[in-house]
This record gives sequence, C-alpha cells and structure tokens, in this order.
Amino acid sequence: MPETGQQVGTRQRVEDSAALLFRRQGYAATGLKQIAAESGAAFGSIYHFFPGGKADLGDHVVRRAGAAYRDLVATALGGDADPETAVLSMFDAAARALAESDYADACPIATLALEVASTDERLRMATEAVFADWVDTATAWFGQWVPRPADRDLATSLIMLLEGAFLLARAARDPGPLHIAGQSMVTLLRAHRSG
Amino acid sequence: MPETGQQVGTRQRVEDSAALLFRRQGYAATGLKQIAAESGAAFGSIYHFFPGGKADLGDHVVRRAGAAYRDLVATALGGDADPETAVLSMFDAAARALAESDYADACPIATLALEVASTDERLRMATEAVFADWVDTATAWFGQWVPRPADRDLATSLIMLLEGAFLLARAARDPGPLHIAGQSMVTLLRAHRSG
Repeated sequence: MPETGQQVGTRQRVEDSAALLFRRQGYAATGLKQIAAESGAAFGSIYHFFPGGKADLGDHVVRRAGAAYRDLVATALGGDADPETAVLSMFDAAARALAESDYADACPIATLALEVASTDERLRMATEAVFADWVDTATAWFGQWVPRPADRDLATSLIMLLEGAFLLARAARDPGPLHIAGQSMVTLLRAHRSG
Repeated sequence: MPETGQQVGTRQRVEDSAALLFRRQGYAATGLKQIAAESGAAFGSIYHFFPGGKADLGDHVVRRAGAAYRDLVATALGGDADPETAVLSMFDAAARALAESDYADACPIATLALEVASTDERLRMATEAVFADWVDTATAWFGQWVPRPADRDLATSLIMLLEGAFLLARAARDPGPLHIAGQSMVTLLRAHRSG
C-alpha cells in the first residue's frame, strides 16, 4: 500500500528530527520518545515507518544525511573557478553555519560514527559508506587540478581537516580551527600543484 | 580521611574502566552500572569517590585521559631529531595502536566531546581545556622549527588531521587515513619551513 501524503509528511518529520538530534547530541543519547516528541509523530508511527526501530531509523538517517551533506560540500566547492578560493570559501561557509547554529550543527554523522564504530556493525558500515562517498566526490573535484594519487590524498585530507576542525570548534565554541583548516588545505593543494 | 590503599586501587579501576568505555562507545551509552561491572567495584563506591556521579566521573576522566594522551603524543614526537621523521613516526604509532585494539582505541575524548558539546557545559569545558593543552604542547614542539604563528597553525592542523584520521579509520576499519594524515603533516611542515 503506497504511503499517503500525510504519512510522507510524518515520515519526513521523523527523519528530520532524528537527523537533528543524532547530529547535536549523538545516537545513544537520543531515544525514540524524544524523536516522537520533537517531530510531533505518534510513537507507534515510528515503528510503522521503521519496523526495526532505532537501528533502522539510524541507518536510513545516516545515508540520507550523508548524501545531502555531500551535495552541500560539492556545491560549496564548485562555486568558484579558482580551487584555492573555492577551498577557502567552503571552510568559511562551514564556519559561518556552525556559529549560526550556536556550535551545534557540524558534521551530520561524526558523533554517531564514533559511537557505533566498535559497537554496531550495521551502523558502522553505513558511516563507512558515507565517508567513502564524500572522499570519492572530493577526489573527482581535486582531479581537475592534480594527478593521481594526489587527488585522493587531498580529498581525504580535506575531509579529515574538516572533521577535526568541527571537533575543536564545537569544543571551544570558536570558528578559528575551521579557518586554520582552510589555510592548511590551500597549502596542501599548492604543494601538490607545484610538485 | 585519607583513602586507604585498597580504596585507591578501586578508584583507579573505576577511572580506567570509565575511560575505556567512554573512549570506545561514548558517554551516553556508558552507564554507571556497566562501569561498576567492568571495574569490579561496588556500584555505591562510585558515588563514594565521585559524589556528583557520572558527571563528576566524566569530568575527571576527560582531564586525566587528556593529560596522559598529551604525554603520549609528546613522547612520540620527541623520539626523533628530524621533525618530518618524528611526525611520520607519530602517525605510524597511532595507526599501529588503533589496528592492535581492533579499531577501538583512538582519541580518548573525541566521542564524548562531540556528544556533550551542545548538551553539557561542564564537560564541554573539560574537553576544550584538553584540546587547548594538546595544541599548546604541539605548538611548543613545532616552535623549534618554525616561527609564530606557523607553529600554532601547524599544531592545530596536527590535532585536526589526527582526529579526522581516527574518525575515518575507525569507520572503515582501515589505518590508511592515518598514513595520509602523516604525509599531509609533513607537506605542511615542509611548506612552512621553506616559506
């Protein structure tokens, strides 16, 4: 039986609330009751949409949020013809978004990824797939300017610097680490282009 | 009343178990009951040592584990007279330790730091202090080879690359990101030394 418009709306609200809570406070701290309360959905309706409960919802949200964030980063990188300017703009945009959310909204999956890496194999694999997708996307972008394997090394470093900067910036409530990360990425890009 | 030798032993075991569990599975997923069971301590004895319960224990463990990890990184960096070799050795050692722990033991405070950043101001400040201490320690080390402010930018990038690499390596159960991070740090150091 296809879902009705109302059901689609409820399911969307459940996913959005779960994504926001997993991102801000993590997976273990977020119960289905809180997701139901935040989304205005009946508790039972979560099981209607996600028969496996929290694990199903977590898997779905990681993959959906991962794809959305990949598109966001790709758009930010693609906005400028000069790659150094594009990299700096991407980190500036991340810093602005983080500060505007009162240091709550950084990487959509990092908290969950660290929580589940050694405890939940299904969710670990979902986070692995998302990070691999991000690195592939950034590799294709860097491939416009540097040869293999520098393209993939730069892409991996971009994701690592972004994640590390989000961690330090959230802990200190300070966007500074994101600006340092952006400058370091420019230095790395320049070194690989001239090497 | 000073603590007896037996109490010191129990307290130490409680702290060690809490540190291990917070590191591997995070703060929210770890209950005092699990800490008591893992450490072989009576549940009530945790409140004897940490009257504020889990928050007191968390604050203490973050600061203690943070100081221990700072010393570990400082020792790893100080082991070689050539800074590029020292940086590569540090990331190699981190990769080996991670693989040997079946991808469980990476950064001692990162999971907790992301969980509490927007939800527990006391613990957030504890993680902020630890990261600042690590950056200060690495800044002093890089200061042997590069002038200000490059020393602090390199130190911040070192911590960010290490944290980002731990995240990707745990998610993929693959030490590869740590080796890429080490090479990127060498590239950054070289660029700042020749610049």
